Amino acid sequence: MRDGWAKDAGSNTVSNTVSNTALDAALDAASTDTARSGDAAARGEIRRHPGSPFTVEPWCVRETELDLNTLAQSESVFALSNGHIGLRGNLDEGDPHGLPGTYLNSVYEIRPLPYAEAGYGYPESGQTIINVTNGKLIRLLVDDEPLDVRYGTLHSHERVLDMRAGTLFRDMTWTSPADDTVRVRSTRLVSLTQRAVAAICYEVEPIGKPLRLVVQSALVANESLPQPGKDPRVAAALESPLVCEEHVARRAGVIMVHRTKVSGLRVAAGMDHVIDSPAPTAVEVESTEDVGRVTIACVLRPGERLRLVKFVAYGWSSQRSRPALHDQVVAALAGAKRTGWEGLLAEQRAFLDEFWAGADVEIEGDDEVQQAVRFGLFHILQAGARAERRPIAAKGLTGTGYDGHTFWDTESFVLPVLTYTRPSAAADVLRWRQMTLPLAAERARQLGLPGAAFPWRTIRGQECSGYWPAGTAAFHIGADIADAVLRYVDATEDVRFERETGLELLVQTARLWRGLGHYDAQGRFRIDGVTGPDEYSALADNNVYTNLMAQRNLRGAADVAERHPDVAADLDVTPTEIESWRQAADSMYIPYDELRQVHPQSEGFTDHAVWDFEQTKPDQYPLLLNFPYFDLYRKQVVKQADLVLAMHVCGEAFTFEQKVRNFAYYEPITVRDSSLSAGTQAVIAAEVGHLELAHDYLGEAALTDLHDLHRNTRDGLHMASLAGGWIAAVQGFGGMRASRGRLDFAPRLPSAITRLAFRVRYRGRLIRVTVTPQEAVYELVEGEPYEIGHHGERFILGPREVRRPIPPAPHHPRPAQPPGREPRRRGAVQEAGS
Amino acid sequence: MRDGWAKDAGSNTVSNTVSNTALDAALDAASTDTARSGDAAARGEIRRHPGSPFTVEPWCVRETELDLNTLAQSESVFALSNGHIGLRGNLDEGDPHGLPGTYLNSVYEIRPLPYAEAGYGYPESGQTIINVTNGKLIRLLVDDEPLDVRYGTLHSHERVLDMRAGTLFRDMTWTSPADDTVRVRSTRLVSLTQRAVAAICYEVEPIGKPLRLVVQSALVANESLPQPGKDPRVAAALESPLVCEEHVARRAGVIMVHRTKVSGLRVAAGMDHVIDSPAPTAVEVESTEDVGRVTIACVLRPGERLRLVKFVAYGWSSQRSRPALHDQVVAALAGAKRTGWEGLLAEQRAFLDEFWAGADVEIEGDDEVQQAVRFGLFHILQAGARAERRPIAAKGLTGTGYDGHTFWDTESFVLPVLTYTRPSAAADVLRWRQMTLPLAAERARQLGLPGAAFPWRTIRGQECSGYWPAGTAAFHIGADIADAVLRYVDATEDVRFERETGLELLVQTARLWRGLGHYDAQGRFRIDGVTGPDEYSALADNNVYTNLMAQRNLRGAADVAERHPDVAADLDVTPTEIESWRQAADSMYIPYDELRQVHPQSEGFTDHAVWDFEQTKPDQYPLLLNFPYFDLYRKQVVKQADLVLAMHVCGEAFTFEQKVRNFAYYEPITVRDSSLSAGTQAVIAAEVGHLELAHDYLGEAALTDLHDLHRNTRDGLHMASLAGGWIAAVQGFGGMRASRGRLDFAPRLPSAITRLAFRVRYRGRLIRVTVTPQEAVYELVEGEPYEIGHHGERFILGPREVRRPIPPAPHHPRPAQPPGREPRRRGAVQEAGS
Repeated sequence: MRDGWAKDAGSNTVSNTVSNTALDAALDAASTDTARSGDAAARGEIRRHPGSPFTVEPWCVRETELDLNTLAQSESVFALSNGHIGLRGNLDEGDPHGLPGTYLNSVYEIRPLPYAEAGYGYPESGQTIINVTNGKLIRLLVDDEPLDVRYGTLHSHERVLDMRAGTLFRDMTWTSPADDTVRVRSTRLVSLTQRAVAAICYEVEPIGKPLRLVVQSALVANESLPQPGKDPRVAAALESPLVCEEHVARRAGVIMVHRTKVSGLRVAAGMDHVIDSPAPTAVEVESTEDVGRVTIACVLRPGERLRLVKFVAYGWSSQRSRPALHDQVVAALAGAKRTGWEGLLAEQRAFLDEFWAGADVEIEGDDEVQQAVRFGLFHILQAGARAERRPIAAKGLTGTGYDGHTFWDTESFVLPVLTYTRPSAAADVLRWRQMTLPLAAERARQLGLPGAAFPWRTIRGQECSGYWPAGTAAFHIGADIADAVLRYVDATEDVRFERETGLELLVQTARLWRGLGHYDAQGRFRIDGVTGPDEYSALADNNVYTNLMAQRNLRGAADVAERHPDVAADLDVTPTEIESWRQAADSMYIPYDELRQVHPQSEGFTDHAVWDFEQTKPDQYPLLLNFPYFDLYRKQVVKQADLVLAMHVCGEAFTFEQKVRNFAYYEPITVRDSSLSAGTQAVIAAEVGHLELAHDYLGEAALTDLHDLHRNTRDGLHMASLAGGWIAAVQGFGGMRASRGRLDFAPRLPSAITRLAFRVRYRGRLIRVTVTPQEAVYELVEGEPYEIGHHGERFILGPREVRRPIPPAPHHPRPAQPPGREPRRRGAVQEAGS
Repeated sequence: MRDGWAKDAGSNTVSNTVSNTALDAALDAASTDTARSGDAAARGEIRRHPGSPFTVEPWCVRETELDLNTLAQSESVFALSNGHIGLRGNLDEGDPHGLPGTYLNSVYEIRPLPYAEAGYGYPESGQTIINVTNGKLIRLLVDDEPLDVRYGTLHSHERVLDMRAGTLFRDMTWTSPADDTVRVRSTRLVSLTQRAVAAICYEVEPIGKPLRLVVQSALVANESLPQPGKDPRVAAALESPLVCEEHVARRAGVIMVHRTKVSGLRVAAGMDHVIDSPAPTAVEVESTEDVGRVTIACVLRPGERLRLVKFVAYGWSSQRSRPALHDQVVAALAGAKRTGWEGLLAEQRAFLDEFWAGADVEIEGDDEVQQAVRFGLFHILQAGARAERRPIAAKGLTGTGYDGHTFWDTESFVLPVLTYTRPSAAADVLRWRQMTLPLAAERARQLGLPGAAFPWRTIRGQECSGYWPAGTAAFHIGADIADAVLRYVDATEDVRFERETGLELLVQTARLWRGLGHYDAQGRFRIDGVTGPDEYSALADNNVYTNLMAQRNLRGAADVAERHPDVAADLDVTPTEIESWRQAADSMYIPYDELRQVHPQSEGFTDHAVWDFEQTKPDQYPLLLNFPYFDLYRKQVVKQADLVLAMHVCGEAFTFEQKVRNFAYYEPITVRDSSLSAGTQAVIAAEVGHLELAHDYLGEAALTDLHDLHRNTRDGLHMASLAGGWIAAVQGFGGMRASRGRLDFAPRLPSAITRLAFRVRYRGRLIRVTVTPQEAVYELVEGEPYEIGHHGERFILGPREVRRPIPPAPHHPRPAQPPGREPRRRGAVQEAGS
């Protein structure tokens, strides 16, 4: 089975799709202006992703029929967010739904973490993202019949996520069981410019005959949620987490203030409306503890349209008072109303225009990947744009997967993208980490270590991992954060950040490494008993990735401390301490298997038995759901790039020949049960010359959610994997590497991609790189001339574009993957040796 | 702090001891016959264990005052059991108590095992020993005032566990708040000859004036229990686990049948009475769902004594019907009543006389250890004598510690004692393991392994460990069971057992090892990612103990399969499979650290950082309660003998010099936070010549519970540690080793022990060895002449005793233990080098 990781046979259940049945004449007349959203492809020309409800288009993700089987997935795909507010792509009317979801960054509830056998230092409580007051609900009654796509006849239903407009558009025509037909169009946005605001433009018109229409716009707290399954990755549902403190109906709106029961966070939500109707409307406003409702009734004739603009605002705080939050929401609503719907749309587009100008990746020759890479960039922007000293969760604000927690995914996969496309957002995440330093220092003390031990998974900063071998023991997260600091400072020369935020993070993480490692009898600095990136190994000695990253962390802390001795002194850093960091870094033990001439992922790894891939059935992936950790940990089977990730981010520590051999060694044992793998494999595949394989991996990373490759997009999008699409394109096929002021490219394309263009921001410059099979063109879009490299040749890039030929790729046989775990082939030409 | 592991300062709380106040003249007159129990030491001469309520006597454990602070500990110490029924040493009247406890071997309830993050193969439910219907309750009303030692005046209170009589005797004189004085004496036994029966002889007499006395003898189900603390080692209390199916009052007794709610086990309990009173008595019998009660009222004058003999019987089954169990209990009561109290006492003593004749260990020069080693033997006998194809739990039937689970403790520590003292009991435990083979085979299949994977902890046979790195991963339990089979067969030549039970256990465990290990590129057979005996390490490669034991298991299976080809064929064993076992055993990888010239406990262990013992405070032991597993696992710190245990049980795999160096290496890093360590350390200390240190460890092992060294004797006795006392004496100072028909001794005494005598049963012989500083005397007490060894010299031991001189011990400097973790010194003479 070639693509066993994709949708398996069992999930091909009977579709409940409400098909597009014949439209009557009246409908035809009404549906002439469908081309509202972006690309205006005539309906007949639209290409669809195989096995997916979504069309292939460069700037939109379009769903042309409503498939109730994929509703939860599409809610994630169509989620809107600005990093502060997140709205899942639930239908306006709320029902049916996969998972209702309205989230505020860092609004969580506390739940106990139980253990069959407790242990010292185990976190006793966890944090879980909660579904806050839902402000996106707009229900419709058509002559007393509630609009519900499961009843009556759904003639057409289209949803479009427009990545340049920053909106989710919906257009449907529906006939009620009582034979009344309406057309409903709605456009939804979560403002990237007004952080506290979301807005919906909702339009309804009768088709064929006059109708009495009642629109109910609601704010609902404590919605009932479906029970999650037994999969540990699904967030625990929390029953009614919000306690009402205040609810007030005002003019055409409602303000509600609630408080979470245990975590004690206060959440204010408000809505206001602008009603535009050709006919008289009756408006009622009411509020109760968990429901605020504005009801608008009118009778419309065919050709008349009721237009409701709903403004929604949120505020939350752990400290501020109820009146303060109330006022904040009222103010946000007033600001949004003054901007108006068209104003919000314009601001949104302007914001995105600027983003795309500096971040877009153009890919010719693979339309699916073109769309998917933009989709990834769009969602990463949504997750990070306005997070503003709050975390970026593994799922952004698109679902409750992983309890809404933030992992190393953020620093190691999402921040590389933001650092070179929207660096301020990268800095903000690191400032959030700095804010949690007291908690990380306390955790280190609890573990008997100096410095700071950042949590493996968290919302607020406390360790929330309930399984320490794959949580606490994965200390590399500290080095990942330090690396993100060094990367950001290198990319921006942001000295203020370096002094105020970067140095403290570097120092406290370096101290941890110095305390965690020790010198052995041969004088090697060892880091024993930790867990590296690969979650199918744990508690191993001298994980190569960890040791290399710790080495970088130690040296980076030393360098930056020496650059800012005054700040370092405030942190009690002494020259002796700096010397101890350098010495540990210089003595860092990097194991190497002389027999096999490869780097073991961790010391002794290559002596372990190789997993029996031949006997593993396709439906036994992901392995962790079908085999005990015991067995996975003790064998050579890799869930996700680990040594290969080290070769990507610490490439300077390996010779080219080592990279070739290591990649060839690890490919046949890497199963990619994690979504944090394909993008990294793409980068190294491209570097060592496996360009077709790199293309396949780029596709897998970028299409994770559009193709629902891990069958859990319903729980939220895989931000790190989406970031992997950008990484594979820019750092893989673009060969981009940056470190210590040195910016290099080594572009090379696979056979099917005829043109790749991308932009990166670096040290105040914006550089565009356009790659074709024959040559690369470098352009300085913004900023002063700068020296860059092309396949090792260095030159100054000034106002004039520079063209360089692409050298041929080295040739090695394409390595094999475990049977059934090959990535789906994308290129037309098969690589030799395969 | 020299003995930091013992009772710390914090536990020296104010004693609530009800002191022995002045007795009035009448009391003096009444208390002349105190010398009822055994040793009759005049009260003034009695020596007490330091910091303990117990006296030092050769054959009894006596408590001369009631200390409510140590009530829970004394309930464990005074527990009576026959391996089928267990009664904690609760006071007759039930209150006050530390923990009420009446247990039946293998009667448990099921409880869920929760996980913060679930994983494949994690057991979802656990088994917990439950407190069954309490038949030992006898309450007394003295003129309407209930006897309760917390009120009124307790003039004297003595309890005596008599290890030759097999009884617990109690003698008290008490004046009620209303100034009425009684003397109460009770003697309790759990019959070693009538498995289903316990009995109590309860006598009460008024002192000084006539009194109305009411004795209430009860059967009580679902007693309320104290809540356990947060310590994971304390069993989870289960609220009211029993549901009544039947209760019936009959003549002077009651029969009750209950069923456990989830595990569905049916438990029948019954009581009957013989009343002997000089005055008329009124007797009432009643029963309700959870209480059966016989009430006896009479008026006695001073000098008159009411004597109540209470017979209690139990039966349980997962399958048999309510009437069948009812009848079984009635029959057991009838049998006991026919035997009568004096008859039961006589049977009990005869049983014990026979046991001691073949098992006693005599130690001159250390009275505390003399008593403690007998105490250990007595409780091991109690735990195993009538277990009869049921497990022997880590706490026997003396408390709820470890949920009543059985671990490798049984095969590795308890069975060596039983094998050479009461071999039939050892065979019965292994027959129980065989009965659970289908469950162990199912578990192996779940783990993807061939053969059988025995549970790390269980009551019924299912894995109940909720923390797999220290549970499932500790696969050595399979080899421990196999070793117990080989040991038993070697010691008994029991061919029927070998064919019917031993071979199947050997084959299924050998298959597991063959599947668990693999050959590496150098042709070494490796066993990776398992946990050895030391619980401060986990998931390591090539644990020396595990690999050596697996080697023995593989070879043993091959040998026995070849000896019984017909049985082997029934188990589908082929010559090819046998050859694969031998090849794996011959290729077994035993890591060795050439640099340090010692064996690493596991591969790479000696490269790890050494635990910072200097910075560890005395109150931070046991380390697992104060440091994360993460930190313990990655450093050189040993909870319990692991490599040292390998040197004991697989001594042939090490040269003498290696033993000396290894012992010197591991002593300074072994903290003995487990009670499964001191006995083993004693054996190797003695073997390599550290005789004083061996004496210290013998003391620590044997006195674990009498001195409450781990501060949790309240939860039950440490059977393995008690076994360690015998092991230290016989295999340490006696130097006894037996394997493949070869029986060797290498006796040598520490300075303070002037004479050691012990008996072992081997191949139908009973051999007595008497050791003095100068010589050893070997006597064949039973059986045919046999060749034995004395310090390497071999000779035939026939009817005439053989005397041999003791060679001087080799001299090495006494190794140091971690600061504060030295065992308490016992000998008068300090060893050189210390």
